[in-house]
Amino acid sequence: MLKAGALDRWRRREGMASSRALNEAGIIAVIREMAGGPFPGLEVPIGDDAAAFHFTGGTALLTVDSLYEGVHFNLDTHHLSDVGWKAAAAGVSDIAAMGGEPSCALLSIGFEAAPVEREVRDLLGGLLEMLSSCHCALAGGDVSRSMAGLSLTVTVAGTPPAGGPVPRGGALQGDVIGLTGYAGDSAAGLFLLERGPEGMRGKFPGLVEAHLRPRPGVREGRLLAAAGARAMEDTSDGLAADLGHICEESGLGCEIREDAVPLSEDLRRLAGEVGVEPIEWALSGGEDYELIFATPPGVFDESARSLGDHGIRVSRLGVMTGREGGCVLVARGGGMVDLEGGGFDHFD
Amino acid sequence: MLKAGALDRWRRREGMASSRALNEAGIIAVIREMAGGPFPGLEVPIGDDAAAFHFTGGTALLTVDSLYEGVHFNLDTHHLSDVGWKAAAAGVSDIAAMGGEPSCALLSIGFEAAPVEREVRDLLGGLLEMLSSCHCALAGGDVSRSMAGLSLTVTVAGTPPAGGPVPRGGALQGDVIGLTGYAGDSAAGLFLLERGPEGMRGKFPGLVEAHLRPRPGVREGRLLAAAGARAMEDTSDGLAADLGHICEESGLGCEIREDAVPLSEDLRRLAGEVGVEPIEWALSGGEDYELIFATPPGVFDESARSLGDHGIRVSRLGVMTGREGGCVLVARGGGMVDLEGGGFDHFD
Repeated sequence: MLKAGALDRWRRREGMASSRALNEAGIIAVIREMAGGPFPGLEVPIGDDAAAFHFTGGTALLTVDSLYEGVHFNLDTHHLSDVGWKAAAAGVSDIAAMGGEPSCALLSIGFEAAPVEREVRDLLGGLLEMLSSCHCALAGGDVSRSMAGLSLTVTVAGTPPAGGPVPRGGALQGDVIGLTGYAGDSAAGLFLLERGPEGMRGKFPGLVEAHLRPRPGVREGRLLAAAGARAMEDTSDGLAADLGHICEESGLGCEIREDAVPLSEDLRRLAGEVGVEPIEWALSGGEDYELIFATPPGVFDESARSLGDHGIRVSRLGVMTGREGGCVLVARGGGMVDLEGGGFDHFD
Repeated sequence: MLKAGALDRWRRREGMASSRALNEAGIIAVIREMAGGPFPGLEVPIGDDAAAFHFTGGTALLTVDSLYEGVHFNLDTHHLSDVGWKAAAAGVSDIAAMGGEPSCALLSIGFEAAPVEREVRDLLGGLLEMLSSCHCALAGGDVSRSMAGLSLTVTVAGTPPAGGPVPRGGALQGDVIGLTGYAGDSAAGLFLLERGPEGMRGKFPGLVEAHLRPRPGVREGRLLAAAGARAMEDTSDGLAADLGHICEESGLGCEIREDAVPLSEDLRRLAGEVGVEPIEWALSGGEDYELIFATPPGVFDESARSLGDHGIRVSRLGVMTGREGGCVLVARGGGMVDLEGGGFDHFD
């Protein structure tokens, strides 16, 4: 598996250079044993052509996300269990962003070359740790050889909230824009992993963890859906791009204030030490897996209070405006900055 | 996208060497436009964090399959529209093998480098042609850069048959083993594409088509489920391996007769011309996407007649035996050949 270089380094570090590799049937046997169960609702588990899951109410939310080695992660900085965790977190977060609850997941893995058992156990260990934290069953999947590197695609199916899924495009003009948690911690963590000065990672474990083990907002999404959020998305592409999606799908514009963007104490400190503008990480970083949402103005304060009672921080970023206004940031100095095109695009 | 070499050859052949590449947002816009709709049951289509689909009865079948360039296809022999078709066919066939009807699909694509619009349209064109042939909606997905080559992962969700999904593990001792269609045509087609003597492909268009445009047995699966099949699987790994799965999951063995394995006229002729044992293609080839199934002995003849009335060929291969007998083929000469380990394994 993996590029020979990264694999060899990884196996040497882990003392597994001489372990025997598994074949496809062996990999599937390990995954099937680790997946455990039974799980409520899962009528046909791993081991058949397709899984069968019963969705109470009949409607299923469905999402898929792929991670590629060398693009989304790097085995010199990510442990295999972190890779498994992140592969599952992306889909779980998409379900959370609809206000839903994850129910079951499918995993497709491509290995460049046959993996050893410990590699499969580490990868699946992280993935199953993430899934079981939100009671989501691993229900099936696919194992194959890839052209190059390790690739993981996770499909997550979930149950929508009682009032129906919260879409990206449900915002109305005048709605308040809110954000859970902090923005930019994951990007700051990635900076530390990729370019951080020697020894600095240990000073900011929370930022590194925000990148390696993001925590999707399943509880946050459920509470926000119940509290009346009518547009919602996870901040997986960066605040600017994700706000852009809500605006575009709602046919509106927005105005947020720079001084309202919540930045963690650690992010501010690191930015100061390395000479980066912290707002850059917040707007363009991505992979935060917080929730950005729009609620009617009369509802926002109560939503924020109700989430606060559950220990969840909510910030009021700004307001939805007419389409003609575009997506703008009111900078600290009072100037207006166009947010469009600010997010990550794989091919820009 | 793709390995530079294969891509360059492909673009030169297609006269697109100077076309402008799309970015991620551009790719998604093309896919969204092509996906069309509305589709019954699809409550949230492409464009949100997750799709929402209403499954009548509440139970969804779920499956995922990945195709990697250089492993599952090669752009010197496969047109991009064939790649799209095959990526969708694998999952549709898994749903068919449970007796179900495909409902909606998710597509995750990884491109090595930004594709041009025609490439996206060709790929999606084949995929949507396959999906729409069975009224299956494309409901969402993911677009990303890959480490190397083109990779496609398709998730298909479907509705189980009225009597519940037909599993691999439902066979009982004494059940008759049946197979729809022919075995080995896809493997023979792959032989022609990869190693066939110049000019020979044109003589066997049906074999080449069996490999490039496999037709999953959705109707076959529905009819077999209704006719009482109690174990079923698609022949995607090769007859020997797929029979092995049914035996293993049912805790049984099986005995099939070599002279009962249905071989097409074209396959026999090609095998004769190139000096290959045709039964090898049938047993180990895979990617046939026919259905192999077990029915109670008293039910088989009527099932076969009922499928025959719909123009579907069904062959009686043999019988399910006790576990101790293993999986065996009674060769033409009367000798017994062990079928275990005969299928394709990505890491053997």
